[in-house]
Amino acid sequence: MGIKILFIDPLGTNVFDEMTKNYLEKYKSKDTVIDVVSFAGGPQHLEYYSYVAIVIPEILRVIKKAEKENYDAVIIGCFYDPGLHEAREIAKKIIVVAPCESSLHIASTLGEKFSIIVGRKKWVPLMMKNVVTYGFRDKLVSFKSVELGVHDFHKDVNETKKRLLKAAREAVEEGAEVVINGCTALVGFFEEMQRELGIPVIDPVIASLKYAEFLVQLNKSTGWWFSRKYTYEPPPEEELVKWNLKDLL
Amino acid sequence: MGIKILFIDPLGTNVFDEMTKNYLEKYKSKDTVIDVVSFAGGPQHLEYYSYVAIVIPEILRVIKKAEKENYDAVIIGCFYDPGLHEAREIAKKIIVVAPCESSLHIASTLGEKFSIIVGRKKWVPLMMKNVVTYGFRDKLVSFKSVELGVHDFHKDVNETKKRLLKAAREAVEEGAEVVINGCTALVGFFEEMQRELGIPVIDPVIASLKYAEFLVQLNKSTGWWFSRKYTYEPPPEEELVKWNLKDLL
Amino acid sequence: MGIKILFIDPLGTNVFDEMTKNYLEKYKSKDTVIDVVSFAGGPQHLEYYSYVAIVIPEILRVIKKAEKENYDAVIIGCFYDPGLHEAREIAKKIIVVAPCESSLHIASTLGEKFSIIVGRKKWVPLMMKNVVTYGFRDKLVSFKSVELGVHDFHKDVNETKKRLLKAAREAVEEGAEVVINGCTALVGFFEEMQRELGIPVIDPVIASLKYAEFLVQLNKSTGWWFSRKYTYEPPPEEELVKWNLKDLL
Amino acid sequence: MGIKILFIDPLGTNVFDEMTKNYLEKYKSKDTVIDVVSFAGGPQHLEYYSYVAIVIPEILRVIKKAEKENYDAVIIGCFYDPGLHEAREIAKKIIVVAPCESSLHIASTLGEKFSIIVGRKKWVPLMMKNVVTYGFRDKLVSFKSVELGVHDFHKDVNETKKRLLKAAREAVEEGAEVVINGCTALVGFFEEMQRELGIPVIDPVIASLKYAEFLVQLNKSTGWWFSRKYTYEPPPEEELVKWNLKDLL
Amino acid sequence: MGIKILFIDPLGTNVFDEMTKNYLEKYKSKDTVIDVVSFAGGPQHLEYYSYVAIVIPEILRVIKKAEKENYDAVIIGCFYDPGLHEAREIAKKIIVVAPCESSLHIASTLGEKFSIIVGRKKWVPLMMKNVVTYGFRDKLVSFKSVELGVHDFHKDVNETKKRLLKAAREAVEEGAEVVINGCTALVGFFEEMQRELGIPVIDPVIASLKYAEFLVQLNKSTGWWFSRKYTYEPPPEEELVKWNLKDLL
Amino acid sequence: MGIKILFIDPLGTNVFDEMTKNYLEKYKSKDTVIDVVSFAGGPQHLEYYSYVAIVIPEILRVIKKAEKENYDAVIIGCFYDPGLHEAREIAKKIIVVAPCESSLHIASTLGEKFSIIVGRKKWVPLMMKNVVTYGFRDKLVSFKSVELGVHDFHKDVNETKKRLLKAAREAVEEGAEVVINGCTALVGFFEEMQRELGIPVIDPVIASLKYAEFLVQLNKSTGWWFSRKYTYEPPPEEELVKWNLKDLL
Repeated sequence: MGIKILFIDPLGTNVFDEMTKNYLEKYKSKDTVIDVVSFAGGPQHLEYYSYVAIVIPEILRVIKKAEKENYDAVIIGCFYDPGLHEAREIAKKIIVVAPCESSLHIASTLGEKFSIIVGRKKWVPLMMKNVVTYGFRDKLVSFKSVELGVHDFHKDVNETKKRLLKAAREAVEEGAEVVINGCTALVGFFEEMQRELGIPVIDPVIASLKYAEFLVQLNKSTGWWFSRKYTYEPPPEEELVKWNLKDLL
Repeated sequence: MGIKILFIDPLGTNVFDEMTKNYLEKYKSKDTVIDVVSFAGGPQHLEYYSYVAIVIPEILRVIKKAEKENYDAVIIGCFYDPGLHEAREIAKKIIVVAPCESSLHIASTLGEKFSIIVGRKKWVPLMMKNVVTYGFRDKLVSFKSVELGVHDFHKDVNETKKRLLKAAREAVEEGAEVVINGCTALVGFFEEMQRELGIPVIDPVIASLKYAEFLVQLNKSTGWWFSRKYTYEPPPEEELVKWNLKDLL
Repeated sequence: MGIKILFIDPLGTNVFDEMTKNYLEKYKSKDTVIDVVSFAGGPQHLEYYSYVAIVIPEILRVIKKAEKENYDAVIIGCFYDPGLHEAREIAKKIIVVAPCESSLHIASTLGEKFSIIVGRKKWVPLMMKNVVTYGFRDKLVSFKSVELGVHDFHKDVNETKKRLLKAAREAVEEGAEVVINGCTALVGFFEEMQRELGIPVIDPVIASLKYAEFLVQLNKSTGWWFSRKYTYEPPPEEELVKWNLKDLL
Repeated sequence: MGIKILFIDPLGTNVFDEMTKNYLEKYKSKDTVIDVVSFAGGPQHLEYYSYVAIVIPEILRVIKKAEKENYDAVIIGCFYDPGLHEAREIAKKIIVVAPCESSLHIASTLGEKFSIIVGRKKWVPLMMKNVVTYGFRDKLVSFKSVELGVHDFHKDVNETKKRLLKAAREAVEEGAEVVINGCTALVGFFEEMQRELGIPVIDPVIASLKYAEFLVQLNKSTGWWFSRKYTYEPPPEEELVKWNLKDLL
Repeated sequence: MGIKILFIDPLGTNVFDEMTKNYLEKYKSKDTVIDVVSFAGGPQHLEYYSYVAIVIPEILRVIKKAEKENYDAVIIGCFYDPGLHEAREIAKKIIVVAPCESSLHIASTLGEKFSIIVGRKKWVPLMMKNVVTYGFRDKLVSFKSVELGVHDFHKDVNETKKRLLKAAREAVEEGAEVVINGCTALVGFFEEMQRELGIPVIDPVIASLKYAEFLVQLNKSTGWWFSRKYTYEPPPEEELVKWNLKDLL
Repeated sequence: MGIKILFIDPLGTNVFDEMTKNYLEKYKSKDTVIDVVSFAGGPQHLEYYSYVAIVIPEILRVIKKAEKENYDAVIIGCFYDPGLHEAREIAKKIIVVAPCESSLHIASTLGEKFSIIVGRKKWVPLMMKNVVTYGFRDKLVSFKSVELGVHDFHKDVNETKKRLLKAAREAVEEGAEVVINGCTALVGFFEEMQRELGIPVIDPVIASLKYAEFLVQLNKSTGWWFSRKYTYEPPPEEELVKWNLKDLL
């Protein structure tokens, strides 16, 4: 009895879809079926916080649709984890995960302290907010920037690799025991990095995939699912109907 | 030479508009011109985090429009401060303020420690995140809930008053020196409260109005405006044009 | 191809072994083989910190033995997580998990804030140290004590249940969204609790079992394992041989 | 109906008085009347903490005098904010502000994170205590020292400018979005700095002036003034009379 | 070769002098010679922060005088520790200690967590600032107020005792392992309290006496004395002479 | 009437015994009698956390033996403070101290901020945990590593000295006012260091010796001893007898 997971690439471009799909296929459990979806329009990367804000409604819509189509889990495929908490609020049974949260739990289990490699320093304040929200403030050593945008990572793969290794080595020098690649577009770099560095390097796409599988299995055997109290307390259905907010239903 | 301010009531109802307009008129500076706007549709309160998420794009659209109409400042009229950081990111010259941030700066100047009165406990996690983001974690004594929804506050004003006073008295007992009414619908209660309690009681609507006036005047004499570095670094205009994100332009 | 896990009940009594074994069998994945072991002598509970200290060497010995016997993972079956970091330091390939760490990761994913129910207040300072070490200080609402010792929980199950529910209800009132039963002897209570309370109640035995399965699967597909840098950097084998510390080899 | 503000330069020298007066005149609101006063004797700078301690009684005396002379507000003109809390304790109606507190509120509104430029590293521990007290510990990126004393800043203005810019650029590199000039003698540098750096540079003299005007206007429209509870609870007048502490009356 | 210590009771009254002197005589080491001094005028208690501020210059003057009279150590006899850091800045060889700092070091050695009993809640904010400054924020469980002023403690000793015990019992219930009597006028209560409560109860007068003896002995055998770097870097003598600040010389 | 102290060098080698004994003799009080003991077997240094774990039972055994032999105090001679809390739990009357705790209390009294010099970066995570546990997180500037093992420090004393001075100078540059030599094998370096650096350099062996003498004298005059509540609540003797845990009796 398999697990059905939807990976949302919340961008108005499908350039990453195939790469991501192949990547997920490689690391998923045997019983998992995985689909990847991107958006018809909208920003083609989410480096700016206003971009994030305007795609969240679409993310929520797609998640509710996936829930109705009986996906067991959905992955919000951006390291800013956009809409993660809002999606859990309106979810009825689906597991919702996101790369940053998943990566932080794994990283802080595999070592005492981690660093996060980012594309640009602009990304740091929002990610820092998430690190604090998830409770890992004291586990974070540093953010290290490679000064590349989301669409630059795969332009010159050797240059990217060189910068990632340099950033990671500095992070280790500063006290990091684990390094996280802080972008879902950084697909395909972690294996060589951990070979070179001799420490775990977390790939956020795989982290979120495996965390989704874990939470689905956990839910099946124990019934553990997102608390309905306070943070994830859902809005009343009557309101959603009355105010014509059917995307949230 | 006056100041032009737009107060956005980010709800799909205009039931609060007139009350809020009259209230703002009473407390504004002589030279300030104030307008109030609400939305044509959407949720009629923002107690749920998914409601917040889906109105932020409309908030951003209205703010950009106000900027083009030469408003000096805009107030995002909800104590969750929805879209505050995103709006500052895409602003070009307009001052953007919001009630929670404004109230916290004022409250922490008038006393060492404050408490925030909320309608329901559901509101706490998101507000707590804002308190932490704004840097006031150590100044917060407690959230006190009166267990009333946004649309309940003015149903039985005496009952509301009774609950607010009880909550405030407990807060003072716990160490609060200032109390903040944590909802923009709690219009018209602070004066009687501070008379009864003998401590400053911050009304978030007035707080945001006066903070907006302050920041506009500050900007005029010093040029101080939101930093364009990191958090508020704006997206490139070419992208906005290319991807047809004209609401952010 | 199955997973082989050893659950160590680090006590000088086998009274919990059968109950624990049956419990683990019920919640394990189909492919998992699970064994339970306790010690021949030593303290019969670990409520005191000196008890913990004197059993850690034996825990380490048993873990190294399990590693040689090709167990994929070992669970240190006490909510104080005794020897967790030391075991990871000397491990060569085995996954080492413990109930508190596992429960905290799961609880903080299912809700923003959790409380931990303990038997006696004496337990709190050491557990608090672990909560801080694991990075979850800001997610913890409170410890709630039911004033029962490890061997009391199953004496009068109804009384225990009553106290657990009372403690959990107070925790929710204080802001907890998830509750953790903070003792591996609290086997068999979570399901009824979560039915009554309507929130996730984490059982630490199951949490550690599923977290062990998760980390083993993660390791198999990605090679992610405990970092050898700093915290878990292992001692040189020559020293272990020269100083006759063969239990650590 | 104008606002009357007294700027206290708490030094036993009037060398800064004229420069400060002219500076304040340039940035004050049209309706504000501003006076500057310094002391007849005592230390001529406050770089040492014992200097600060011995001038506070004189600061309090001058503030009480200003209150009786119907000043609306008083500014304690040193970035250590000496006597700020004590003055508010004994104030009866006057607004008391100080440069560090004012600057921090403004800086943390204009950006997420700020750095403070100081003259010498000796200044840091006391300023850090204030940053923590005001609640902005998490917003501070760093203190940057230019290794110049209070009376050195205007000796070689180009050298000072060069050092300020270098310090500010390093601060931005470290994550600062706003920079604060951490001395009231650093008059006249911010405009060129923010032109060169492209970020807001806060001048503490102007910050305190505008914050004073803001709090006076706020008080006039809402009655908000310093809480009389706990921190600012005033001593009983009988005691002041009985013990001949008339400077505090 | 004995130790000469001066205990400063920084009040404009000698009503506590004899009681304090007798008390110190009882607990001092055999070789210690102890003197007690109070002030000719000024506030007769220091419950208000402005009172504290105006006596600090006199405290500094007396400390410099004691240093010249070859006292080995001086105790600033108020639990607010007024002038402690300033005195260390201008000290040349004398050991300066104060009750709060001394008590906190001892309390946090004897147990993990402590509570501080205060006379009135007004005292809390300033003491809290000291607790944070000294680094013991995480060790503090609570402040407990007995709602008595400094001069009330010895009016009805039985009532005081009753209130202290009640406060201490609540503190233990909240997690305190040690209790500190947070006022130097609370002389003579700790022994009975610790007999009744079965936990250490720290008397701040004795704590500061023994800490002074400890630091003097430490200094004699190792040369360890207050660092001259940053916080305690002393002002240049030329300035003190030139500006006629001879009290600081 | 003298004080009898046992210094435990918790290593399976006596190479440090004589050096340590001579060192302690030089700094002890006249009335103190000091003995040094090391172990018959086991690890010859404690740089790895598993080494620490396996020697703690022997440390506890030796401490209980010392208590029966009427030692007034025992010093656990390793800067990791191994077994400190467990020993206090089972102690009946003996004072138990350890170098890190002792050094931190002294260092944070002599200056606002300190740095700790370590041999290797591997040591940092465990020491950091202790710094946090003891409450000094905010006082710590940095750990500085000289990249030498415990048995290397005395191989080339000049090289060690050079590295210590370099590390200390960097620490001061970063804000440290006091420096702690973070290893009990760093005997004999502090005096020259503090002469060169002009700041207090804490030797942890002397620090623990003097702190032990201090706590013994304190106990004699006031009865203050480790709290029996929560953290140090001792196990019931019946259990120790019944389970044959006589080493803890």
